[in-house]
Amino acid sequence: MDYTTALSAFSAATLHEALGRYGNLPSAIKPIHPGMRVCGTAYTVSTMPRDNVLLHRAYAYAAPGQVIVASCSGFFEAGYWGDLMSLGAKTRGIAGLVIDGCVRDADDIEAMGFPVFSRGLCIRGTTNFGEGTLNEPVVMGEWVVNPGDYVVGDRDGVVVIPAARVEEAIEKAQARELREEWVRTQLREGKTSIQIYGWDKTYGY
Amino acid sequence: MDYTTALSAFSAATLHEALGRYGNLPSAIKPIHPGMRVCGTAYTVSTMPRDNVLLHRAYAYAAPGQVIVASCSGFFEAGYWGDLMSLGAKTRGIAGLVIDGCVRDADDIEAMGFPVFSRGLCIRGTTNFGEGTLNEPVVMGEWVVNPGDYVVGDRDGVVVIPAARVEEAIEKAQARELREEWVRTQLREGKTSIQIYGWDKTYGY
Amino acid sequence: MDYTTALSAFSAATLHEALGRYGNLPSAIKPIHPGMRVCGTAYTVSTMPRDNVLLHRAYAYAAPGQVIVASCSGFFEAGYWGDLMSLGAKTRGIAGLVIDGCVRDADDIEAMGFPVFSRGLCIRGTTNFGEGTLNEPVVMGEWVVNPGDYVVGDRDGVVVIPAARVEEAIEKAQARELREEWVRTQLREGKTSIQIYGWDKTYGY
Amino acid sequence: MDYTTALSAFSAATLHEALGRYGNLPSAIKPIHPGMRVCGTAYTVSTMPRDNVLLHRAYAYAAPGQVIVASCSGFFEAGYWGDLMSLGAKTRGIAGLVIDGCVRDADDIEAMGFPVFSRGLCIRGTTNFGEGTLNEPVVMGEWVVNPGDYVVGDRDGVVVIPAARVEEAIEKAQARELREEWVRTQLREGKTSIQIYGWDKTYGY
Amino acid sequence: MDYTTALSAFSAATLHEALGRYGNLPSAIKPIHPGMRVCGTAYTVSTMPRDNVLLHRAYAYAAPGQVIVASCSGFFEAGYWGDLMSLGAKTRGIAGLVIDGCVRDADDIEAMGFPVFSRGLCIRGTTNFGEGTLNEPVVMGEWVVNPGDYVVGDRDGVVVIPAARVEEAIEKAQARELREEWVRTQLREGKTSIQIYGWDKTYGY
Amino acid sequence: MDYTTALSAFSAATLHEALGRYGNLPSAIKPIHPGMRVCGTAYTVSTMPRDNVLLHRAYAYAAPGQVIVASCSGFFEAGYWGDLMSLGAKTRGIAGLVIDGCVRDADDIEAMGFPVFSRGLCIRGTTNFGEGTLNEPVVMGEWVVNPGDYVVGDRDGVVVIPAARVEEAIEKAQARELREEWVRTQLREGKTSIQIYGWDKTYGY
Repeated sequence: MDYTTALSAFSAATLHEALGRYGNLPSAIKPIHPGMRVCGTAYTVSTMPRDNVLLHRAYAYAAPGQVIVASCSGFFEAGYWGDLMSLGAKTRGIAGLVIDGCVRDADDIEAMGFPVFSRGLCIRGTTNFGEGTLNEPVVMGEWVVNPGDYVVGDRDGVVVIPAARVEEAIEKAQARELREEWVRTQLREGKTSIQIYGWDKTYGY
Repeated sequence: MDYTTALSAFSAATLHEALGRYGNLPSAIKPIHPGMRVCGTAYTVSTMPRDNVLLHRAYAYAAPGQVIVASCSGFFEAGYWGDLMSLGAKTRGIAGLVIDGCVRDADDIEAMGFPVFSRGLCIRGTTNFGEGTLNEPVVMGEWVVNPGDYVVGDRDGVVVIPAARVEEAIEKAQARELREEWVRTQLREGKTSIQIYGWDKTYGY
Repeated sequence: MDYTTALSAFSAATLHEALGRYGNLPSAIKPIHPGMRVCGTAYTVSTMPRDNVLLHRAYAYAAPGQVIVASCSGFFEAGYWGDLMSLGAKTRGIAGLVIDGCVRDADDIEAMGFPVFSRGLCIRGTTNFGEGTLNEPVVMGEWVVNPGDYVVGDRDGVVVIPAARVEEAIEKAQARELREEWVRTQLREGKTSIQIYGWDKTYGY
Repeated sequence: MDYTTALSAFSAATLHEALGRYGNLPSAIKPIHPGMRVCGTAYTVSTMPRDNVLLHRAYAYAAPGQVIVASCSGFFEAGYWGDLMSLGAKTRGIAGLVIDGCVRDADDIEAMGFPVFSRGLCIRGTTNFGEGTLNEPVVMGEWVVNPGDYVVGDRDGVVVIPAARVEEAIEKAQARELREEWVRTQLREGKTSIQIYGWDKTYGY
Repeated sequence: MDYTTALSAFSAATLHEALGRYGNLPSAIKPIHPGMRVCGTAYTVSTMPRDNVLLHRAYAYAAPGQVIVASCSGFFEAGYWGDLMSLGAKTRGIAGLVIDGCVRDADDIEAMGFPVFSRGLCIRGTTNFGEGTLNEPVVMGEWVVNPGDYVVGDRDGVVVIPAARVEEAIEKAQARELREEWVRTQLREGKTSIQIYGWDKTYGY
Repeated sequence: MDYTTALSAFSAATLHEALGRYGNLPSAIKPIHPGMRVCGTAYTVSTMPRDNVLLHRAYAYAAPGQVIVASCSGFFEAGYWGDLMSLGAKTRGIAGLVIDGCVRDADDIEAMGFPVFSRGLCIRGTTNFGEGTLNEPVVMGEWVVNPGDYVVGDRDGVVVIPAARVEEAIEKAQARELREEWVRTQLREGKTSIQIYGWDKTYGY
């Protein structure tokens, strides 16, 4: 089974915990519809503020199955991506977009089932000057996303997993889920987490 | 066909682009339900912070089909508008509310199908002092909304169209949609936007 | 009829107005699904930033029917609460969570029908150091929540009602609803609120 | 020696620590000149947003030596206080102003030596409607300021000390200063704080 | 006496009040040194985010005595202006800069005595694409600045005065200062403002 | 001449430009007194929110001449550093502190001449749990600071220079200063920057 399929079985939060609380992208980046999920390797972009030429180029250059991960110089209030770009990207097999900025045409994007994770929706149009970087490391909140890193997003948020740690992430996420299922059983029996984790000895019940 | 009907056929983003990236209201102003749309001429209001007398007066004075467009002195955290005012406004044929502040009673407003675009929901009550202006120009983010300007809102955001430019907006929006349909056809055939726009000559494929 | 049942009949906004515009918690605290409602007495928590030991302890110590009300030192960007804690709390009869911070596992929490009101969703994991306070007064925005105060939350927001004023809140909320129904009747007949409230004498129609 | 004189000998930070990290007002509230200090009992005010009638009333009603402590409904962008009010307050022996909002006429206020602690400077004028509260508890950030509590402010920020804990604050602040002087001596000799506090045993040097 | 000289005699706050609380620019725009003052007619600029070509053009095209007033698309975090541009502008007799964004080289600018009012200081460099507008109306916070309007800035903030209202502003500001001097005399005698304004009849002493 | 001395000759803005607009730390990080400057290699720290044990350890472990560069998990509102730590660090030859959070005891720190660059001042005390990292890469705004990178700070802000690019930075900064001096000469003669850069051919004079 390939890594993308394996990672898709886990939530972003579980993978974040599996790697020792690693890789949480800014929590303001959320799917434009809560049911959207995304998983794949990152094709990274860094744009000028309010300019989207590099996003047009990114979906043309990225490989099928990749996720466009874009930083926008900290300027969120523009519609960097819309229905046409979603159609172009989806047609080429791009797996989705994760952008630290806004997008537009949410209804059409949602209708075509192309997963977009953004700061929000904004109609404000963009320029076409094209300065910035393609497929180089980008900072997203507290973490660096390198080209080829895995990104997994769901309703709770988005996590980045370094390519070199993907097997570790999958193994530890599986272990975590087993342990959580065991906790779940005890919780259903009426035990509390402070009992299950043994914290009642420290704090009293 | 009247202008309101004609404008209703376009998205806010399309009209914004049609006029050369004009008239985007602050992107924090969104419909309280993503399915809401609004279109009509603006009856403008500028309120004191946390005071809503002028909003009561506005829906009584505005003409049927108009949209109340309200600035609240930059004080967002109050429930300036609720279910009773929505009922009163709807009964009088007001087309909707666009407010740079918060509202409350979202469930009831949604149930009666009165479109409200706001910064969000807030239960905090208002005062009744009544200072401010009615049907004078108001600043909304980067743009001025004049009485009688057209406003069009959907899930992506809200655009204001100067009354004198409404025919231009409709024509250019139609042209833009035709062009976009032509782009869409090519995207579906696997071309990318950098090819369609000829940018591949600048950037390489 | 007990107070909780009685309070549940009213919206948060109505109760806020009933007590003279009292007790609105920060409007950024919203249900993770708009259909969630919560009502009960507060078991208060104040956590260190990014630490959630006290939340584990809180749901173990609180009485069935109580609502956990948590301040997080003004540090919102962490997933202080998730599906396991929701399961544990729900199993013990806890009525819900109101937190001035973020949570995660929204899909699972929503599926189990445990009401959670938060600043938003965030996958970022927490620490286990455990400093802070349990069941002592906490500041939430403009108001103090004391242990045993009532909290009522819905899509519009959350209100806190001092324990000593709960009967007053219920009576005044009932009176307010009667008055609102009377206003509604007149609005449906085409009167405006400035006529109904007699403000037309001040402002002209 | 009276409490005000005794408290004046300590920094706001020292008093905050002395009471177990208690009473820090929002750190955005700073003196309009870094050399200003304030110390006295609080005469508390809660204003409507952008209204300053209650501040005029406050300095007329407060006793000489008191400090006006004002919350402004979370609306900071107004010049709630200026040179005339400073002159009036200073003439009546008011010890200073601590306001969770902005002020204006900074040069004149500084020239007359009246200590003002605010969110910043803003020329925007205020209204005269006068709703709000005088000398009732107000929330300032994380803490409640009760009438008669002591406030101490300097360049670093402002602390509130409950009236009932003022002697405790003074004693513990004195003890803290002695301990700090002892630490200072060792630091000057080249020891590090992890050695002085014994943390080197935990962490290694 | 010319208007600029006449306006220079008043504070920004006084002129704002003189025109009925008109024209306050965002209070985050402050002089880079508190002793700086600026007064003149506006040469307006609207830049792309992070681009400063239009500012280079603006000081070359503006007339001596004018003040460059610049909006930066809501993107503050760039050093749009520095010591070289200050030298060029000062040499050409430009009276100062008011910018809704950041600048750099504060020490050198201060040393040459060229007044700059900005959101703050930022070293981040700019691009040279040059899109935007020159000498067209720009929105600054709540108000529109038209080419040729007067701007007056001091430590408290910046006010814009419409060219057509400049005489009114001067007259009313003079009247206001006389009235304030009369209030000052009474305050020094121990009267309070609620007595001087007659509010004691409403509120009691 | 060593690199630190060489870098000290340039402003942070010049070095940022010299490396192609690289390395600007968040512009909210400023010296607590505008006259402070800092230059040295980074000893990096990442703290838990509101915890400062790692800062105590950092100045004990860092080499003389190094600058402590600290990220605080995005929680700014705490006094992570004060006069005692400044004394300890200065005694050991530490060159200064650059922190993405707040500090306290500004007067004492300024008096001892220890350069501190921070988000601001805050009296709020810290905890002593000690989780985090020492001398590992940290994200500061848009850039990664690696242990051993050079940081240079002045009134305008702070820049990080990768260790491997320090000679390039010095050479290009010197070239830039020569070019700027040549521009300055022409500006003093009355030429404008659009003439000097040849942009007048594009835009007209």
